[in-house]
Amino acid sequence: MVGTRLTPQRETELYGTVLDLLREVGYDALTMDAIATRTRSSKATLYRQWGSKPVLVARAIRCNKPDASQVADTGSLRGDLHAMAALADDARMQRDVALMRGLFHAVHGNPDLHEALREVMVEPDANGLQVLLDRAVVRGEIAVDHPALPFVPHMLVGAFVARQLIDDRSVDRAFLVAFLDAVVLPALGV
Amino acid sequence: MVGTRLTPQRETELYGTVLDLLREVGYDALTMDAIATRTRSSKATLYRQWGSKPVLVARAIRCNKPDASQVADTGSLRGDLHAMAALADDARMQRDVALMRGLFHAVHGNPDLHEALREVMVEPDANGLQVLLDRAVVRGEIAVDHPALPFVPHMLVGAFVARQLIDDRSVDRAFLVAFLDAVVLPALGV
Repeated sequence: MVGTRLTPQRETELYGTVLDLLREVGYDALTMDAIATRTRSSKATLYRQWGSKPVLVARAIRCNKPDASQVADTGSLRGDLHAMAALADDARMQRDVALMRGLFHAVHGNPDLHEALREVMVEPDANGLQVLLDRAVVRGEIAVDHPALPFVPHMLVGAFVARQLIDDRSVDRAFLVAFLDAVVLPALGV
Repeated sequence: MVGTRLTPQRETELYGTVLDLLREVGYDALTMDAIATRTRSSKATLYRQWGSKPVLVARAIRCNKPDASQVADTGSLRGDLHAMAALADDARMQRDVALMRGLFHAVHGNPDLHEALREVMVEPDANGLQVLLDRAVVRGEIAVDHPALPFVPHMLVGAFVARQLIDDRSVDRAFLVAFLDAVVLPALGV
């Protein structure tokens, strides 16, 4: 395997295992040794391909994100966002909240993790939500300088965290749709 | 001191010390012994007055919340919310985000803490925000069944958490005002 890249399928499997370990032990206790053992890879392979633990973790998180860029153009932002919500899987969102809780804690003490996460999150193809918003701007549904546009990620991240903190429940598809209709779309004037 | 209640001033001081300790060591490592030592109280006094660690911590958090119910009626929800934002102290909000980060982590493994926090948060006099929203409903600015009303706490909690997670910055007064004007008020149709 030396010198060869992992196949995309093998890469996705490996990312899944990294997230499993992350949920089990948390970021700080996660070691490259444990990842190597569980994924039956060599540590050399892991370091060659990703360089460091924070970068590997950030890539795994990014791979796990629902890919909103796969949402076909429905002709309206409301339709596109509802289609994105329909892609969401309730059990998966529940798992993701646990993951976010751990990461929110971990980024505080690990600036390199925070940096790696920010880097993958701003990659254009990683950010399907931005694709949907750009489409709405091109369509003329939202002005490019609409004051609520920069806050859409804050609204959505906030919905996930606050649902847990205030209501002690995970976000499910029904909550997501209600939040989109009552908050996100009206704030955007759509 | 047996049988007497603490004075309100002494109580506020004690809550401040609990929050200091909470920021220093986190919820799980916080002990009633450490609180008793630092506040020069007896553990018997602490247990008599609060009953348990989660209840004491929840009361301390509640005491620390900016009291939006002190905001005088400005005649509009926009005016009231801006007045609330003007009460906010940038340094204090920065400290509070650190506190929330720790608690978001702690409530997961401590259902009794979660329960105690929820109880103090829903107390009517603890929830100044609700006072401002109720005022707007009475004024006729917002319909009592407006779909965005139940989500206002989610929007605000979300703003604090997401600002940190996405922008790696604490909420300051300027961000809070921008978020109120771009998201909260338009979502409420005000």
